[in-house]
Formats: sequence, C-alpha cells, structure tokens
Amino acid sequence: MKIVVDIYGGDYAPDEILKGCVLALNSNKEINLVLVGKQDEMAQKLKSENYDKSRVEFVDAPDVITCEEVPTSAIRTKKESSLVKALERTKEDDECIGMVSAGSTGAVLTGAFLKIGRIKGISRPALAPVLPTVDGGSVLLIDCGANVDCKPNMLEQFALMGNAYMKAVYNMENPRIGLLSNGTEDAKGNQLTKESFELLKKLPINFVGNMEARDITSGKYDVIVCDGFMGNIALKASEGIATTMLTLIKREVYSSLKTKIGGALLKGSFKKIQAVLDYNQQGGAPFIGVEKLVIKSHGSSKAQSICGSIMQVYNMHKNNLIGKIKDSLPEIQSAE
Amino acid sequence: MKIVVDIYGGDYAPDEILKGCVLALNSNKEINLVLVGKQDEMAQKLKSENYDKSRVEFVDAPDVITCEEVPTSAIRTKKESSLVKALERTKEDDECIGMVSAGSTGAVLTGAFLKIGRIKGISRPALAPVLPTVDGGSVLLIDCGANVDCKPNMLEQFALMGNAYMKAVYNMENPRIGLLSNGTEDAKGNQLTKESFELLKKLPINFVGNMEARDITSGKYDVIVCDGFMGNIALKASEGIATTMLTLIKREVYSSLKTKIGGALLKGSFKKIQAVLDYNQQGGAPFIGVEKLVIKSHGSSKAQSICGSIMQVYNMHKNNLIGKIKDSLPEIQSAE
Repeated sequence: MKIVVDIYGGDYAPDEILKGCVLALNSNKEINLVLVGKQDEMAQKLKSENYDKSRVEFVDAPDVITCEEVPTSAIRTKKESSLVKALERTKEDDECIGMVSAGSTGAVLTGAFLKIGRIKGISRPALAPVLPTVDGGSVLLIDCGANVDCKPNMLEQFALMGNAYMKAVYNMENPRIGLLSNGTEDAKGNQLTKESFELLKKLPINFVGNMEARDITSGKYDVIVCDGFMGNIALKASEGIATTMLTLIKREVYSSLKTKIGGALLKGSFKKIQAVLDYNQQGGAPFIGVEKLVIKSHGSSKAQSICGSIMQVYNMHKNNLIGKIKDSLPEIQSAE
Repeated sequence: MKIVVDIYGGDYAPDEILKGCVLALNSNKEINLVLVGKQDEMAQKLKSENYDKSRVEFVDAPDVITCEEVPTSAIRTKKESSLVKALERTKEDDECIGMVSAGSTGAVLTGAFLKIGRIKGISRPALAPVLPTVDGGSVLLIDCGANVDCKPNMLEQFALMGNAYMKAVYNMENPRIGLLSNGTEDAKGNQLTKESFELLKKLPINFVGNMEARDITSGKYDVIVCDGFMGNIALKASEGIATTMLTLIKREVYSSLKTKIGGALLKGSFKKIQAVLDYNQQGGAPFIGVEKLVIKSHGSSKAQSICGSIMQVYNMHKNNLIGKIKDSLPEIQSAE
C-alpha cells in the first residue's frame, strides 16, 4: 500500500523526514512511499541510505509552505509546494491510502479539508492525538485544535468519530467517552458543553458523562470530547507543567553531591518517564473525518516520529478506520 | 483588623480550620478573628489550644452547607449556616476586612456575589489563584472557574483587576498581561479571545498579547486572562499531569534496588518540588471584584493552608487591594 509523505514540512525537514521514511520502509515490507519535495535534493540525500528503491516513488515539488504563512492562501496559491502536491496525490491516487506531514498545522488541516475533502456526513474533521495514560493505556483527545469555535452537533460528531477510532485502531469494545467540563456532575459546564451533553447522552456510545481536566491521563476515559480550543489549552497546559516539573527536578538533582548521585541512579527512570510523556515520539495526531488517512506529525518530529506516523497510517488502514467511521454515519445522520 | 473564618467549610472542617486560625493568631498580633460555626463545639475544641483569646470572637451558626447542595438555593435557604453567617458578618461589620472559607466553591462564590456584593463597575467578580512559576515567581490566573461563559468586556475587567492585584499585592510595577489562546500570533484564538484581544490592547496595561497554555508557569507572564471554563481546564489539566508524573516517578523508584537508593537520595528534592507545585499549601484563591476581601481555600485545606489564606486577606488589606481596584475603575468604566 502507498503512503504519501510531505518531505519538506517540519523543523527538521528534509533530512529527518527522509530518515523516517527509510526507517519505515525497512521495518515493514508492505509499505510503499511517495516522497514529495525537491526531487533532486531528495535523491541526492537518499543516495547513501540502504532501502528497497523499488518501493519508493518521487514527486517533484520545488516550493515549501512555512508556518508563517496564512494557511488558506498558502494552500490556494502555492500549487508547487510539497504539501499541496502531497495532498493532491493522496486525493487523486486510489492506491494511496493516506499521507503524513510535519508541516504547518493550519496548512495541513486546511489543505486536507479543501483538497482531500470530508467524509460525507461529517461537518468538521478533527485533530485527535492519542495520549498515554498513567496505567499504560491510551486516550484520544478530540478535537485538539482544528476547530476553535464549535457547535454542539460538532462535538457529537467528534464523539462518534472518536468512538469509531478507538474501536478500530485500539480494538476497544466499548470505549468510555467523556465530555471535558469543569466538573463531573451532569449540570456542570458552559453553554456549549451543556448542550452537547444532551446530544451525547442520546448516542449509541458508552458516554460516561462530564469529566474534569485532571483526569485526562488518569486512565478513566478512552475518548475525551472537547472543542478544539479547549483541547489545545488542555494539551499545552499539560506539556507546560511537565516541562516545568522536569526543569525543577533537574535543578534539584544538580543542587548537591547527594542529589547528583540520586539523579545518576534514576537517570534511566527519568528518560523512561520523559518518553512516556512525549507522545510525539510515537507518531503524530490523526486528522479524522477526511476521506483519506492524514497524520499531522509534530513540527519538531525527527526520524523515529515520522516512521511512527507512517506506521499509524498503515495501522489505520489495516483496521479500516474510514470504513468504520462511515459505518457509524447513519448514527451521525440520524443524530443531526 | 478582623477577619472572618467559616469554620465548617472544607474536607477537614472544623478541626484543621480551627488549627489554622490558631496558627494565624500566633503568627501575627494584628490579626483578630471571627470564628463562625457551632459555637459550643468550637469552644470545646479550642480549649486545649494556646492563643490570645481576647482577639477571638465566636458567631454561632448551627447549620452547614455541603458541596452536594445547589449553591444559589443553599445560600438563600440555609440562613443559619456557617457560610451565610460568615458572609453576612463580613458584609455588615465595617471592622471586618474580609473572610476565608474552604467550603463549596459554588456556594462561596455565589454567596460572596449575593451577600457581599460587587465593586461598582465590575460586572462579574473572578476567582484568581496565584500559581508558582518555574523561575520562582508567581502568576495570577484570572478567571479560574467563577464565570464559565464570558463576554469580551468581562475578560477586559479581569485584565484590569489582575493588573491591580499584582501591582498591589506583589508590588509589581508593570505586570505582563497575557491572553490565554491557542497560539501567540495576534490572529489566533476563538471568537471570545479574538474580540477580547481588541479590547485588551486598548487598555492602559502592559498587554503582551496572546499566549499559549504551555507558558502558564514559564515565568513569562504575571497575569493570565481567560474565561472561567478555560482557566479551570488549564489548571486541572496541569494538576492532572503533575499527579501522573509523580505516580510514574514513584513507580520507577520502586522498580529496583538501584532506583530505590536514587529515590531515597532525592526524597527531599521530590518533597520540595511537590510543595512548589502544590500552590494550595500556601493559601487559597482570591475572589476578586467583590466589596470585601474573600479567599476561597481549597476544599482539602489543612491548618497551614488556612493560616496562609488568613495571611492573604491580611496582605491584601495592607496593600489596599480594593482601593486600588477602585482606582482603576475610571479605566474600567471608560472601557465599557
């Protein structure tokens, strides 16, 4: 199966993106890649790498979209950019199951929305990273930034798509769906979540009610539904406090000989914890609700993360994610 | 100066609340306390404590408002509750500068709003905890749960009150005010923050623009303005990830002999970090914008935290917080 990769998106493009592609090619023989970007430069950089060249195709795209550009106009005007070319190829080629980009989030989402198009019945696709939970599980946070102003019926669709995702990709039988709010009681929430609560409780899903942000990584929920603005706040607040804690720990470790020894003995542990928390290392965030599989890798993605993102597209396809989202469409449409 | 304390609010009421009062009385001779609750029981429990009895007054209130009750109706109907009696005394007695309660957040905020009343010109008071930053500083997060649905002019008032607070209580000359958003660029945000941005940039404050949730504790901001729903999400997401990290660290420490020794050597450090992050230990969250000083202590407050909350009321009064908020009223009114 073919997966398209935007080689010129991301802070470490093109080198780390290309290395990630090589990793993916060498770890799974079923994967074929379409590499989109400056063709000569890509070919030159890949010369010394060892991989099965018969499973790689190049698409030339001399231009690049940066994070500073306004997404909509960049997608409309930069027709020769690696992102636009990658989106078009993903859309047009039936053999291409999906794509990966670590480029500008706004441009990737806008581009996927405009160029690949929505699944019929979905009004707004959502960006939905999978986060690690304290008990070693996973939780999907949907939406996490694609839609900053939402209406209740959008949160309803997020719940259904999140449910389909965790069933398909994580083999969960009956994912526990929580609605992010300012308290667990039914009456808690702002206007948006209160109206959404009424819609969610009528859906054929395991809706367990309102939840608090302190329980995001607690393992009590499999899918957390929220508008993209809240999701962004929750995710970044978590990142911020994790960074703050690691800084404080480092400072403490360096404060005396005793703590330095303690720190040395726990070095492996801290690395392990950092790896658990840095969910970006494992791949990217699926953009769910468009007609093909799209993974938005973090801008700071290195090879390992790009390889993880390619594997995510592979797994979503193997598990027929889009088919399963479509299967829940009658539910969505009857709910609208 | 007299400070009123609701002795029967909080998970550890009345014992820890009373102990906190004793701590405060013994640490600052200027403080007189009005203890509100079951008078005989309070007197009995305080018998064995050593403190200056001439600086303590009891107000009998046989009833208690619990967290399970609907705030508005509890405030209206439970006239003999410790919270309502405390609020009334605070309002009516000119010598009482403010009050402390660790009771139901909803009831304390609703009660202060209804019984003590707003400062003229403030449409909605806000709950504004002070959080520790990674560089050892402090940042005020306003609003953090009092108002779940906000209009731009409310965020404008939060900015002015937050500015006055950090100037008055933290002696800051020119607090850096950030607007919580999903990116730092001016054009980022949802409808509420975009409209608020336009109002904030016209105010006579040091508005530094949109900020991301990952920078809440970074030390780059002194006041963070947001609606109460977002503030709640940001704060609780931070609490959640901090808990998750501490759980992961504990698990790692117990995983082998080597890490156990490392953990033992870093035990003091972990405690210090926990203390920095547990801002509740240092006191409570001011409810800013009402006519008297109100501190909402965390429900799980113990003696040290209650003592801290009483000291906060004392400090806010010493620094003439309410006067300074009123001084910024012409700005507020001209901005409306």
